[in-house]
Amino acid sequence: MAGDEETPPALILHHLPNFKLSIFALLRSKYTVLDPLDDPPHPSFPELSNAARLMLCAGPTPVTAAVLDRYPALECVVGSSAGINHFDVAACRSRRIRITCAGDSFSDDVADYAVGLAIDVLRRVSAADRFVRAGSWPVRREYGLGSKVSGKRVGIVGLGSIGSRIAKRFESFGCSIAYTSTKKKPNIPYTFHANAARLASNTDILIVCCALTDETRHLINTEVMATLGNSGIIVNVGRGALVDEKALVEMLVSGEIGGAGLDVFEHEPRVPRELFALDNVVLSPHHAVLTPDSLGAIEDLLLANIEAFFSNQPLKAEVQLEFAS
Amino acid sequence: MAGDEETPPALILHHLPNFKLSIFALLRSKYTVLDPLDDPPHPSFPELSNAARLMLCAGPTPVTAAVLDRYPALECVVGSSAGINHFDVAACRSRRIRITCAGDSFSDDVADYAVGLAIDVLRRVSAADRFVRAGSWPVRREYGLGSKVSGKRVGIVGLGSIGSRIAKRFESFGCSIAYTSTKKKPNIPYTFHANAARLASNTDILIVCCALTDETRHLINTEVMATLGNSGIIVNVGRGALVDEKALVEMLVSGEIGGAGLDVFEHEPRVPRELFALDNVVLSPHHAVLTPDSLGAIEDLLLANIEAFFSNQPLKAEVQLEFAS
Repeated sequence: MAGDEETPPALILHHLPNFKLSIFALLRSKYTVLDPLDDPPHPSFPELSNAARLMLCAGPTPVTAAVLDRYPALECVVGSSAGINHFDVAACRSRRIRITCAGDSFSDDVADYAVGLAIDVLRRVSAADRFVRAGSWPVRREYGLGSKVSGKRVGIVGLGSIGSRIAKRFESFGCSIAYTSTKKKPNIPYTFHANAARLASNTDILIVCCALTDETRHLINTEVMATLGNSGIIVNVGRGALVDEKALVEMLVSGEIGGAGLDVFEHEPRVPRELFALDNVVLSPHHAVLTPDSLGAIEDLLLANIEAFFSNQPLKAEVQLEFAS
Repeated sequence: MAGDEETPPALILHHLPNFKLSIFALLRSKYTVLDPLDDPPHPSFPELSNAARLMLCAGPTPVTAAVLDRYPALECVVGSSAGINHFDVAACRSRRIRITCAGDSFSDDVADYAVGLAIDVLRRVSAADRFVRAGSWPVRREYGLGSKVSGKRVGIVGLGSIGSRIAKRFESFGCSIAYTSTKKKPNIPYTFHANAARLASNTDILIVCCALTDETRHLINTEVMATLGNSGIIVNVGRGALVDEKALVEMLVSGEIGGAGLDVFEHEPRVPRELFALDNVVLSPHHAVLTPDSLGAIEDLLLANIEAFFSNQPLKAEVQLEFAS
């Protein structure tokens, strides 16, 4: 059937068994979908996948060099995540495979959630809810005071699409904003610090929202957290491995840092059990990005990029890979 | 001793046994403090309290006509709360007793907390924390999606010191702001609605933060909540009785309204147990006002007002009682 003008173009669907998007059905009506998890497999899977030019990577499913090797004609991977740390970017670059990501589809949701986690940790909202649900209010009447949010110094690690939105929100609380980033950004009114430790030493609320790369892995280490100190809190809505989790847990347990709001962890869905006993910690199952609204927006973006690719139109939210010429 | 210029002026300390402020000790060093709860009582309590011109009312301790009758020379009650619903205002007015309140000492904290509760309810932060702490993440992996905060329509009941601060914060989330109030406020860019039902019909997040008076008791009734509907949520940081709590609980249980973040209740510290089973509800023990920072600010204000009164200086945060001339 290859070459038949009536045949819809083929695309590879790359996802984990438990990760499905509602557009999968729509895609099957418009394209020849090749899903290696299909049982039975597509009758022409071997030849079609050999010729397939596009892959849809749904969720944080690893796109390794070995995965890419299965599809010799691949030209583009359309991704559904904000981050691309699950991609072997070097392998994509060497094969000149283009990558798109979620762009800023999730940015508002993540920024909202980061602010919610910060208020929750400082003002102990989840702990208050636990206190009331346990029936403790009429009995003990006392409840640990939290800490004020307004006027605090917010330090943002990674002032991109998400970080800028977090900054804007905290400004309305009368908070001062500083950031660290690979380099100082032009025309930004916030204070720049050259590294995370310097930022932490001038920060009450440290928000971690940069991309995870080899350079940023464990960027928030013991030294940075010690500098933040016991009146500071950490909010991580980026990736778990941006923070040295073992050190984080130790310093939370010992009280060397003041608290943490964590949506991401190093070995998800595993969460260090020591954290379960702490009232100055808010734990969340990597859901900062997820609302029905943003899922709708991302599915629209995925569809638009798939259509754009097959009609030779520009892609949206394409990752700039700087292919060697 | 009365009339002796060396005797520090007398003030009445009016508080519940379990409500103490750290300035009490300082007051005792500067004034003749008459505390009816002292055991043994002040040796000159009867005559000094007969002549006392000032009362410090600490916390939401009721100041009834009967309480006022015990102090015939009273000219002023310095209060520590933002609200004055625990005062018999008519009795104060008829005796021309001046009242001061917390003014805006707590406003930032309450506004911060209101925003935190709204994010928490919509994005299910406390429920997420419960989910993770219960160890459910690795087992179920699924977790109900919340609802987006950014861009929602926020309706504020009572656009005073607290309400305006809540509005400012939600603007930074790209939310539209509307309000209801006793009358339309001049030079305010937000949409005015003449009553709570009209506001609710144009609102996703209904924030209740007005004063509790005879007119506002059960202002948020079944009709208002039905208009808000099952995609709307209520955040109450005002007083429990502003909302018909029985109806609220029924409509939360039946799903007629979408959720609630409640810092206040009609019969505190009693919280309706039906709420304990709900994941779209966040419960808090009347702590929106309380941070160490705002406690410090309010104690400074109380001291300043007591000193101002005894030196015939203007009072701060005085409630305008419109005494009959």
